[in-house]
Amino acid sequence: MSTGHVTRATDRRGIDVLTLAECLDRLSSTPVGRIAFVTSGGPVILPVNHAVDGTHVVFRTTVGSKLQIAEDAGRVAFEADGMDVRTRRGWSVLVKGVANPVYEADQVARYEGLGVLAWADLDPESAVWVRLRAEEITGREIVR
Amino acid sequence: MSTGHVTRATDRRGIDVLTLAECLDRLSSTPVGRIAFVTSGGPVILPVNHAVDGTHVVFRTTVGSKLQIAEDAGRVAFEADGMDVRTRRGWSVLVKGVANPVYEADQVARYEGLGVLAWADLDPESAVWVRLRAEEITGREIVR
Repeated sequence: MSTGHVTRATDRRGIDVLTLAECLDRLSSTPVGRIAFVTSGGPVILPVNHAVDGTHVVFRTTVGSKLQIAEDAGRVAFEADGMDVRTRRGWSVLVKGVANPVYEADQVARYEGLGVLAWADLDPESAVWVRLRAEEITGREIVR
Repeated sequence: MSTGHVTRATDRRGIDVLTLAECLDRLSSTPVGRIAFVTSGGPVILPVNHAVDGTHVVFRTTVGSKLQIAEDAGRVAFEADGMDVRTRRGWSVLVKGVANPVYEADQVARYEGLGVLAWADLDPESAVWVRLRAEEITGREIVR
């Protein structure tokens, strides 16, 4: 997707606001993101490898807390970014929504084909797919 | 800090558990992290440039929501990571605690000297320092 000729909206700080298509494009091309969820002790952030399926963010987990929040259909946030410290430019995309575990064989097969990296620690036998149904996707880019 | 000769604990998945000193070292040497806090609409994650002052994570913000959570002394999480997609190895550090705005001149001067990058969008006139008092710092490394 070319973004060079798109006239973008800017937010109140003069930062470029990414379109939904741009947000999904950035999420798709960035293999590592972070998921946040709320526990009794407050918010937690954990890194995940993800893929984008339509407007859903999907990832695998064997971790108790990430899986539990999905079992509970809890509210989560997902973030990916690309920050260039040298130029002090960067972008970030935030997805807010509800997470659910996915056990249906056809959906699992579909997600297996999305090319999500399996990290060295992930036991494929016990890994469960989690789907984040996006209710809000927003992105910003600092280009000045 | 050399970590090559430290015998590390491993968690239940066989991932190396970083020591507190290792966690602080990773946080200090990584200029970009992410902060999560809880709003009425659920958790939110935003990228920040940070520095480490003892066991405190400090950053500047002009953003309403990040500043508001600090004004409210809200519970936050801070995360930094380094993921190498090629080798499928990586590390992440999670800090949980309470955020507060810092207005005292001597503290502000101290933080100004920590070398936190100012991004292109940050208006130094309106930026406020936020200090995250860590209550828990944990880190993991996938080295297999």
